[in-house]
Amino acid sequence: MKRVTVGICGLGTVGAGTLALLQRNAADIADRAGCQIEIGRLGVRGDRPDVETGTIPVSRDVMAVADDPEIDILVELIGGTDTALALVRRALANGKHVVTANKALIAEFGNELFHSAAEAGVSLSYEAAVAGGIPVIKALREGLSANRIQWLAGIINGTGNFILTEMRDRGRDFAEVLAEAQALGYAEADPTFDVEGIDAAHKLVILAAIAFGMPLQFDKVYTEGITGIETVDVGYAEQLGYRIKHLGIARRTEQGIELRVHPTLIPAKRLLANVNGVKNAVLVEGDAVGPTLYYGAGAGAEPTASAVVADVIDLARNLARGQGSAVPMLGVQPEAIESRPILPMEDVRTAWYLRMTAEDKPGVLSDVASICSRAGVSIEALIQKEPAEGQTRVPVIILTNRTREGELNRVAREIEALDSIEGQITRIRVEALDG
Amino acid sequence: MKRVTVGICGLGTVGAGTLALLQRNAADIADRAGCQIEIGRLGVRGDRPDVETGTIPVSRDVMAVADDPEIDILVELIGGTDTALALVRRALANGKHVVTANKALIAEFGNELFHSAAEAGVSLSYEAAVAGGIPVIKALREGLSANRIQWLAGIINGTGNFILTEMRDRGRDFAEVLAEAQALGYAEADPTFDVEGIDAAHKLVILAAIAFGMPLQFDKVYTEGITGIETVDVGYAEQLGYRIKHLGIARRTEQGIELRVHPTLIPAKRLLANVNGVKNAVLVEGDAVGPTLYYGAGAGAEPTASAVVADVIDLARNLARGQGSAVPMLGVQPEAIESRPILPMEDVRTAWYLRMTAEDKPGVLSDVASICSRAGVSIEALIQKEPAEGQTRVPVIILTNRTREGELNRVAREIEALDSIEGQITRIRVEALDG
Repeated sequence: MKRVTVGICGLGTVGAGTLALLQRNAADIADRAGCQIEIGRLGVRGDRPDVETGTIPVSRDVMAVADDPEIDILVELIGGTDTALALVRRALANGKHVVTANKALIAEFGNELFHSAAEAGVSLSYEAAVAGGIPVIKALREGLSANRIQWLAGIINGTGNFILTEMRDRGRDFAEVLAEAQALGYAEADPTFDVEGIDAAHKLVILAAIAFGMPLQFDKVYTEGITGIETVDVGYAEQLGYRIKHLGIARRTEQGIELRVHPTLIPAKRLLANVNGVKNAVLVEGDAVGPTLYYGAGAGAEPTASAVVADVIDLARNLARGQGSAVPMLGVQPEAIESRPILPMEDVRTAWYLRMTAEDKPGVLSDVASICSRAGVSIEALIQKEPAEGQTRVPVIILTNRTREGELNRVAREIEALDSIEGQITRIRVEALDG
Repeated sequence: MKRVTVGICGLGTVGAGTLALLQRNAADIADRAGCQIEIGRLGVRGDRPDVETGTIPVSRDVMAVADDPEIDILVELIGGTDTALALVRRALANGKHVVTANKALIAEFGNELFHSAAEAGVSLSYEAAVAGGIPVIKALREGLSANRIQWLAGIINGTGNFILTEMRDRGRDFAEVLAEAQALGYAEADPTFDVEGIDAAHKLVILAAIAFGMPLQFDKVYTEGITGIETVDVGYAEQLGYRIKHLGIARRTEQGIELRVHPTLIPAKRLLANVNGVKNAVLVEGDAVGPTLYYGAGAGAEPTASAVVADVIDLARNLARGQGSAVPMLGVQPEAIESRPILPMEDVRTAWYLRMTAEDKPGVLSDVASICSRAGVSIEALIQKEPAEGQTRVPVIILTNRTREGELNRVAREIEALDSIEGQITRIRVEALDG
């Protein structure tokens, strides 16, 4: 039987999971790949890993793996964009195929790296970089390849979804749930990447590049985190028939591509609204197929390893036949990748959830409504609560129809300027996700 | 630019959709495939189709398409296992790649046809045969290839799901909803294939063959339809926190493979329970990735065409590079396909929903409970309704724990033999779908 040799760099959570999975399912994997997949060398920086490596040679210098002439496929699981970038550049320059789970690397350096890979006649695979074990890159690049993708919307950060799920299910505060997520190991000590939407933005940029056949443009994503979401808003959303999810959304419009990560009210009956805890899901709308959804574990050692090893098997199946992968790295042939304008946020049209604190006296709602009306903003729903005992102010919640964001901002400022309105308006975008 | 030539046989709903999609998205498809995909010939039996075919040659003899030396890929969209079987045999014998949406053909003749294709060094692709536009064949065969699949459960017949959804949402009867589904064109004039589970069994056999690397064994599937489901059971299931779905289930056990299609109570909070109307979804449990779910349109012209054309693009991407597809047709190399025993239904273990009509007098429940107890069947939940005005009999609903089916049948017969129980017990299997 033929043999394909893999080198794995990085033996943290995902690296250890990948090693374990390749070993545990070796027989089944060989039956599927049509060749033996041998682990030829491991690369780890610093201390020897806390992982049983058996007789596999371990290099402290990860570059030695990229230079090893026995290695066909280098698996980069170091993370970050320092050593990992240098390593992947070197492996590609040496004519090795590369498999990575590194979303930051692809989102920020993918254009260069895909070009280098194409020049070298090798593949750079990255299924594990988006939504962990869910084969959504494959779905977009191959399964939906007949479609013109209209839009996609994904829960692509498990930590954020865990926090929002707990806030809803138990009425807990953001800060309290975040602390628990850190204790459970779902969230990093520095949770910025997760809760500020940067991790989701990395993934969204990758999905959008495939969906629309355009270069990766990480610096163009609008990113808004969930740190400002209050438990009270989760509750009002519920009363209106919605749930708040932290979504990455990419949409094709006449004026440009929308590329945005932000908290979003979505109808409670949508499947995406019922994706809870650390799970991920991506909803994709194609012109022929309509909506399809892909759901599963977005992180974790073995779910991520599942995607890494699937990429290895894809390559090994081809290498065992003496051929390369026929699937272009971004789904379209490199020469067909086309730069597309990104729509400025002020031109994006969504519905809105607005919560304001108003004086409990006649005429306030009428003032608010007439500001909306003059701006052409329709009010789809309105909740005004009774004032609490001894209070003279009440929360007012409004759902608007779809409005240009620049216009909505102007309306919000005008409402905030009313004497009867206290402080700032809480604003959350609303998406129907119905096509 | 290179060119790959396709011949399409059958211009019914899906054939017309495939033609339209290849033409509408031709530019995007060429960018993805790396070649022009040309429609070289159409084959239609009988009258000229009610479809604009432009300058494409149309043959009344579909075999002429299989014999046309210009055709690289034959797309079979005739359906059934008469002409379609002869056509696919001929195309493969002529060394042509074949793409089909024909579930009956693959489920019943796949073993022979995959063998012929492998002999001829060509591919027989069938993404559209299962769950329409959802790329679940690709997910199983490629995306999850690193996993040992433990089980899968799917809503893989849209007509049946539409009927069950309407029964639940509107409390309507089976017969009434079926008539509407026929009027809407969701159900055929002869709905047997859909409502008796034969269509789902075809699809389940295909999914199971890939998941477990075994031959297609259509004659081994246990198949039970939804014609016996009563609105009252839909309501009681709801009260117990469940929904009734018509599932195809395949599971790996120590004793053999479970392969079964039947109505099933599943917890209402599962995503699968919230897949409504004509939509399909497949839940797959892998040892590394855990549960993943694939959702979308399971039928219809363009959703099915989406999968047909994706298969064409997969092939064209390879043909444009002068190579064949590296993905084995059933996911494992042909020589690794292994016959596996199918578990007899009496050895299958599930929980059960039992509904019986009992006399409203002391001691009845105690008799029922002690029959269950002696057989080791635990009662997880029990609902006894008040008798209706003037009635002396009441419905009793029991949820049991997981029990061997042979044992449950014995228990049911013993309960039915009680003087205080009238008629037969309604029995529906229950699955937690939690791993």
